[in-house]
Amino acid sequence: MTDEQEKGATGPIRVGVLGARGRMGIEVCKAVDGAADMELVATVDQGDPLSAVADAGAQVVVDFTTPDVVMDNLRWCVDQGVHAVVGTTGFTGQRLDQVRGWLGGRPELGVVIAPNFGIGAVLMMQFATRAARHFESVEIIEQHHPRKLDAPSGTATHTARLVAAARAEAGLGPVPDATADEVAGARGADIDGVRVHAVRATGLLAHQEVLFGTIGETLTIRHDSYDRVSFMPGVLLAVRAVPGRPGLTLGLDPLLD
Amino acid sequence: MTDEQEKGATGPIRVGVLGARGRMGIEVCKAVDGAADMELVATVDQGDPLSAVADAGAQVVVDFTTPDVVMDNLRWCVDQGVHAVVGTTGFTGQRLDQVRGWLGGRPELGVVIAPNFGIGAVLMMQFATRAARHFESVEIIEQHHPRKLDAPSGTATHTARLVAAARAEAGLGPVPDATADEVAGARGADIDGVRVHAVRATGLLAHQEVLFGTIGETLTIRHDSYDRVSFMPGVLLAVRAVPGRPGLTLGLDPLLD
Amino acid sequence: MTDEQEKGATGPIRVGVLGARGRMGIEVCKAVDGAADMELVATVDQGDPLSAVADAGAQVVVDFTTPDVVMDNLRWCVDQGVHAVVGTTGFTGQRLDQVRGWLGGRPELGVVIAPNFGIGAVLMMQFATRAARHFESVEIIEQHHPRKLDAPSGTATHTARLVAAARAEAGLGPVPDATADEVAGARGADIDGVRVHAVRATGLLAHQEVLFGTIGETLTIRHDSYDRVSFMPGVLLAVRAVPGRPGLTLGLDPLLD
Amino acid sequence: MTDEQEKGATGPIRVGVLGARGRMGIEVCKAVDGAADMELVATVDQGDPLSAVADAGAQVVVDFTTPDVVMDNLRWCVDQGVHAVVGTTGFTGQRLDQVRGWLGGRPELGVVIAPNFGIGAVLMMQFATRAARHFESVEIIEQHHPRKLDAPSGTATHTARLVAAARAEAGLGPVPDATADEVAGARGADIDGVRVHAVRATGLLAHQEVLFGTIGETLTIRHDSYDRVSFMPGVLLAVRAVPGRPGLTLGLDPLLD
Repeated sequence: MTDEQEKGATGPIRVGVLGARGRMGIEVCKAVDGAADMELVATVDQGDPLSAVADAGAQVVVDFTTPDVVMDNLRWCVDQGVHAVVGTTGFTGQRLDQVRGWLGGRPELGVVIAPNFGIGAVLMMQFATRAARHFESVEIIEQHHPRKLDAPSGTATHTARLVAAARAEAGLGPVPDATADEVAGARGADIDGVRVHAVRATGLLAHQEVLFGTIGETLTIRHDSYDRVSFMPGVLLAVRAVPGRPGLTLGLDPLLD
Repeated sequence: MTDEQEKGATGPIRVGVLGARGRMGIEVCKAVDGAADMELVATVDQGDPLSAVADAGAQVVVDFTTPDVVMDNLRWCVDQGVHAVVGTTGFTGQRLDQVRGWLGGRPELGVVIAPNFGIGAVLMMQFATRAARHFESVEIIEQHHPRKLDAPSGTATHTARLVAAARAEAGLGPVPDATADEVAGARGADIDGVRVHAVRATGLLAHQEVLFGTIGETLTIRHDSYDRVSFMPGVLLAVRAVPGRPGLTLGLDPLLD
Repeated sequence: MTDEQEKGATGPIRVGVLGARGRMGIEVCKAVDGAADMELVATVDQGDPLSAVADAGAQVVVDFTTPDVVMDNLRWCVDQGVHAVVGTTGFTGQRLDQVRGWLGGRPELGVVIAPNFGIGAVLMMQFATRAARHFESVEIIEQHHPRKLDAPSGTATHTARLVAAARAEAGLGPVPDATADEVAGARGADIDGVRVHAVRATGLLAHQEVLFGTIGETLTIRHDSYDRVSFMPGVLLAVRAVPGRPGLTLGLDPLLD
Repeated sequence: MTDEQEKGATGPIRVGVLGARGRMGIEVCKAVDGAADMELVATVDQGDPLSAVADAGAQVVVDFTTPDVVMDNLRWCVDQGVHAVVGTTGFTGQRLDQVRGWLGGRPELGVVIAPNFGIGAVLMMQFATRAARHFESVEIIEQHHPRKLDAPSGTATHTARLVAAARAEAGLGPVPDATADEVAGARGADIDGVRVHAVRATGLLAHQEVLFGTIGETLTIRHDSYDRVSFMPGVLLAVRAVPGRPGLTLGLDPLLD
């Protein structure tokens, strides 16, 4: 590490991006570049050597690559003493244990692995989980463009499970529903007892509403995502936080409290 | 008809209410009573003689009774030369033809029969029908209290059929939908090719949203009904209009244009 | 206290209501009466002796009275060893100190004083406060019936202040706003730097939306209150909680966590 | 005109685009290119000769240029017998009269000039105008990104004026509003008696809601525009319609009925 890089410790955070030419990677590079407190020092994609990251003195690596290379990338980061923020998918319990094992020998090093860097989506799920036990009723309505293959969305399914678990923990019974005469599908999909409705229409982007109801009132938490750049504030938040969070951090939640 | 009643022609409209002690009838009586340009001159319910309406010189009768008595009531109104506004259900094509037949002999007399006196709901359906052919996508989300027995609601089903017919007339094909992996029910009920989602939650009253989408934009028409008094402006509108509309008028639509 | 009343300790909570014939008191009586784990043992209003509450062996008193009698009621409750849940307004810092003083001598006794028993409204404010520091922009839109005298509503003003304080604590600057050409009032009221818009329309009841925005996404927290019975779940929650919370508890928030 | 061009009359519509390298022009070119029933035969911008349009046998010209050249372009189109669809701004009553004069000598030729090609926005205004006289209350809430300079938006101001005119025509008085204690600006801007609220937040694009209220119910018409491509379906609609609409057509409204 050169003198200049040493000074970096108290200057901008030196960031390297893996998967830099991918759809998300391109946005990460732009976001890091635009952040006053960060410096983009290395961009790596298929065919580029990881050593470029070390040579540039990166303190934090952001990885938006693919499940088949991400474990090698992480192993390398840990060996080199570089913190990592990972948006790549495919992390099983086994993989997470492996990462924890590697980090065991480097108590000063931090890794953040998150399935979703959208602060709005993460807060929506947090608030829904907190509200769940105070309301008799809850339903989820997600709305997306019609090119989407799955219904409901992964976020809606995940929210439904969180809400169902919180209801169960609070000892709430099933939501009230007197429906006796239903045209098939009208009441939505049943995810752990929570009804989820998936709307598809041209013009829509990615939207979700969690509706809670009790006697005389409803509480609605709605998230509208207009652009994949909406993940960037969450990525930057993680880049800033990871040097101060040794060990493995799962999800954005702990960084938001 | 006395002199005083004659003067009524240019004074407030003299209104009689049939089914005056029923849930809707009570609200109609209050609404007529509160309207500056109307006078509530007769209230009739089971066991009361219809002659009270004639004796009081009513010009318009509002009927919120039951399918088994409404035809006798209408026959009597036509015989007596009293205009009628009818919210009672159960009108088949055959019944409507019968009413038309009776009115054939009384060219000055008007009858308005409407399944829904909610101006907001009627306009929602009108606008949805008009918008239908300009948008690639359309879905309906209705939301009601959990004591409701049918899903989707009658209004939502009716709206879906109107929209589907308007799309067919304009030569539009099926709405785009790439869903390949669906948890059963997620995409709602299919009513003539229009997806309808029924949300049920404590605290809700009666709400409906029709969402239209095309490239880069959506148009949403939403109706919220908080109270059955919401039907009253529509009833009063019909009472005011019926003396000037000879013959049979079906639905509130023609009165709103 | 009789044997029967003793047994009450492990049976339903014995509740007395002060202000029982007032608008809110009537609803409280109904709600307590309908709760399986409570028994309504005394209802007191102007002219009735407070001793009825003690005679009936009430364990918890709910007070929806008026600022001029509430302090005497509370003094009496503390003297008699009865827990209190208070929705009456007019509590100054001085009054709260006085209540704390009285409770100093009764370490087993609890008093909950809350300006708002609507769980939905309280959670909306909690979530808004938590979300505040993660979003560049925030605005509040409240919607009420047109008979309301103040604009914005007390709840909206309170929410704006909580949000502004959370932003300040997080070191956020002013929300971005390039408006250069404004028709007076278009951008709403400025409450501590947060723009608040008050919509008034016939048909509306009481609604509030807090809209947060950051790059590419928005998060909206919306509360719809359809009826004053919406306060009842919060009142019952407080009745259940107060015997286990010695001392003075301000607001519903601590009971919701 | 060659034989091939003659055949074009029953084949795809031959379209030329003026201002083809501008922000809107680029989108128009893409949209025409992607439409199965159109052929993009000429693209002209600053410095290119208009004759390219005639040489290519264009039947319809789309003009998204600037106020200083649009009149010359239109004069040329009329002389050449080419229909025109114009999205350029700056049309005064005097300019429109001039266009009408030119068209007087060419009874087969059509020109469509529209300030807004968003079908959703145009329908929103149409529906709002139609609903206006049936509701006691109406307010407008528009929401845009914070870089917008004017508040309220031009569309919101225009909608308010249309609604106010429809109310006046129907003999409606002022909207009910008991506000006695207002923080300045809370009740929005007053545009011809209609309250308009302008919300600004990062993440938002262009949204507008018109809220109507009467006893017990509300009707909301909401438009969300996510992208300037949302204007393209309206442009294509006009291109298809203009050969069949001789004379000057103002706005998209007549094409939507």
